Amino acid sequence: MELYQATTTAPVNIAVIKYWGKRDAKLNLPTNSSLSVTLSQDDLRALTTASCSPTFTEDRLWLNGVEESVATSSRLTACIDNLRQLRAELEQENPSAPRLSTFKLHICSENNFPTAAGLASSAAGFAALVRAIADLYQLPQSAKDLSRIARQGSGSACRSLMGGYVSWEMGEADDGNDSLAEQVAPQSHWPEMRAAVLVVSAERKTVPSTAGMQATVATSALFRHRADVVVPERMSAMKRAIKEKDFEAFADLTMKDSNQFHAVCLDTSPPIFYLNDTSRACIRFVEELNRSAGKVIAAYTYDAGPNCVIYYTVENEEIVLGALKKCLANIDGWRERDAALAASLPEGFDSRTLDAVSQGITRLILTQVGGDPVSIAQDKGLIGQDGLPKSLKGH
Amino acid sequence: MELYQATTTAPVNIAVIKYWGKRDAKLNLPTNSSLSVTLSQDDLRALTTASCSPTFTEDRLWLNGVEESVATSSRLTACIDNLRQLRAELEQENPSAPRLSTFKLHICSENNFPTAAGLASSAAGFAALVRAIADLYQLPQSAKDLSRIARQGSGSACRSLMGGYVSWEMGEADDGNDSLAEQVAPQSHWPEMRAAVLVVSAERKTVPSTAGMQATVATSALFRHRADVVVPERMSAMKRAIKEKDFEAFADLTMKDSNQFHAVCLDTSPPIFYLNDTSRACIRFVEELNRSAGKVIAAYTYDAGPNCVIYYTVENEEIVLGALKKCLANIDGWRERDAALAASLPEGFDSRTLDAVSQGITRLILTQVGGDPVSIAQDKGLIGQDGLPKSLKGH
Repeated sequence: MELYQATTTAPVNIAVIKYWGKRDAKLNLPTNSSLSVTLSQDDLRALTTASCSPTFTEDRLWLNGVEESVATSSRLTACIDNLRQLRAELEQENPSAPRLSTFKLHICSENNFPTAAGLASSAAGFAALVRAIADLYQLPQSAKDLSRIARQGSGSACRSLMGGYVSWEMGEADDGNDSLAEQVAPQSHWPEMRAAVLVVSAERKTVPSTAGMQATVATSALFRHRADVVVPERMSAMKRAIKEKDFEAFADLTMKDSNQFHAVCLDTSPPIFYLNDTSRACIRFVEELNRSAGKVIAAYTYDAGPNCVIYYTVENEEIVLGALKKCLANIDGWRERDAALAASLPEGFDSRTLDAVSQGITRLILTQVGGDPVSIAQDKGLIGQDGLPKSLKGH
Repeated sequence: MELYQATTTAPVNIAVIKYWGKRDAKLNLPTNSSLSVTLSQDDLRALTTASCSPTFTEDRLWLNGVEESVATSSRLTACIDNLRQLRAELEQENPSAPRLSTFKLHICSENNFPTAAGLASSAAGFAALVRAIADLYQLPQSAKDLSRIARQGSGSACRSLMGGYVSWEMGEADDGNDSLAEQVAPQSHWPEMRAAVLVVSAERKTVPSTAGMQATVATSALFRHRADVVVPERMSAMKRAIKEKDFEAFADLTMKDSNQFHAVCLDTSPPIFYLNDTSRACIRFVEELNRSAGKVIAAYTYDAGPNCVIYYTVENEEIVLGALKKCLANIDGWRERDAALAASLPEGFDSRTLDAVSQGITRLILTQVGGDPVSIAQDKGLIGQDGLPKSLKGH
């Protein structure tokens, strides 16, 4: 059968200046700019195959083995419609190009980490979907151009189309034309950045982000001051910290902005809580690590969930992982090369936080800053020659 | 022996618009006005006897049975010096008055609730101390005048010199002359107000308020907006709600301001946490109660600690206490008259919050809006004719 396909992986990104609040809920236009670190796809990624064929009768999507309805998701159809439109323009300019824009799509996507656990799975998922369809359609648009489309699927997805250190500039236009992701610096500029994800719970989050952020915009008396005054200053300071590879400034801004994001959640009516007692113990752990080490060597940040992400650089890996080993030696996630690492704490570390961290964390993911989405060879794709997910074979 | 003495009780107050931040740490001048409900001294009170005698050789203070140093507490000496000065002026105008201002003081004070558990014990304590010495000295100054002095002992103590609904107007003068408490409405204006204190833990708080609020002032990027813009609006709205006995408006402002106070704590570097998972469960409990009751019948508020105070009015007592009984029937604090009350939840109440409340709360205090400090007969005082605490007899 006549079948076209393309497969890509896309990364997770964890923001250090947080996106929280939409000025346009349909177009996913934010109330403030944001900035994130793209994480390595070796450890966390969405893998997506997009295929099309004149024999397909409807757009279909399989997500982690389960078929989801495409037609009822306005976010999905917005992305697909935009990409089809770009393909149709390309076909108009190049009459010999196959008429892919007229074919239905079969899309299959798999994450290698739990969905909706506050790990930005929708960001990686929508970035992979947009990248895979754009590759299938052989679109000439840049990652920045495509970020306009991915943004409509999930706001923070726009930042997952690029590796390294990525900003999402909020823009001003009503149609969202200038609300785009930009690479602040590639992975190669500051490859020493490491990230440890401390998974508190893989349960689904209590308040979905979209509902939460709109409640904050509507009811928090502190929110506008954050969006209008605080974040613009922090965006400039964070870009400077990244350009100068100034970890102390990076860490200070990262921790402050995570706390402020959760502060405006708490200032929402009714209040939104993503941090729990374990999250707070992890904050104390990182603070105590910095204090006892005598310098800022680690920064915590929390998205819309209780999981803790700790950023640090490779030069302090032994200290940071040594301290984590002191309370998390028995959980999953340590790599072979960490076996030799001794559990140890800096002198003077107040060990009172260790028990709460130890009891509340269920899994560790050790990763680092990563690169752009990666094209995958067709034989490693998720859709077979029959146009259906390979994982469904035999069912 | 020549011994003069006076005894008073003073109440606890629980703020509904929170005091957090000093513009002058020595004079305890706040960065924003605040407003509280004075609670009944039948349930929560400091009891203080002030005595003086020409035979005393130094100022001494016994607090809950333990002697504390007066000379090393600048807050205590500030209060005592101010009151002595007023007595000296009175003696100058009235030469026949005994020269009490030249005698040393013995002061004995006892709370009927755990100290430093986030129950504003210092507010009641300093208010009782100032009121007792003012009574001993037979000072003509009003409660409002005396609030200037009590404020220097502990900021929120100024609000415990009056019953009912009390504001602390921040003032503008550098010397604090106009930073005073005022009665917004007496207890008799709205006597239907009830309060349930859910004690999460009687441990001392992790971050003392004075250190905490100064860290917030110094580091929170949201704090100034709260102090300068949000609180002034809320003060007006809260006074209106009290004057109109509009519980729904009172409750809405109370919950919002509690959340915002804890939000600016979280926006502090390093972040300050007073709420824990039990506190958050209590918030969810109150929200669910209001939702299922179909109207706002209860309001939560939290000071610098995890304990939950729930305000409600007598007309909804059966619903509020019935719901509390559902999860707290077996803890201390229920009154004889509550024995007949059936544990019950409004129809449609989502009972998922009940377990966490039930497991985390250790004690209940049921009380209500109360009156001014109360003078106590001399024979019920805490200091004997020998000028020493009666409780020390036999030691």
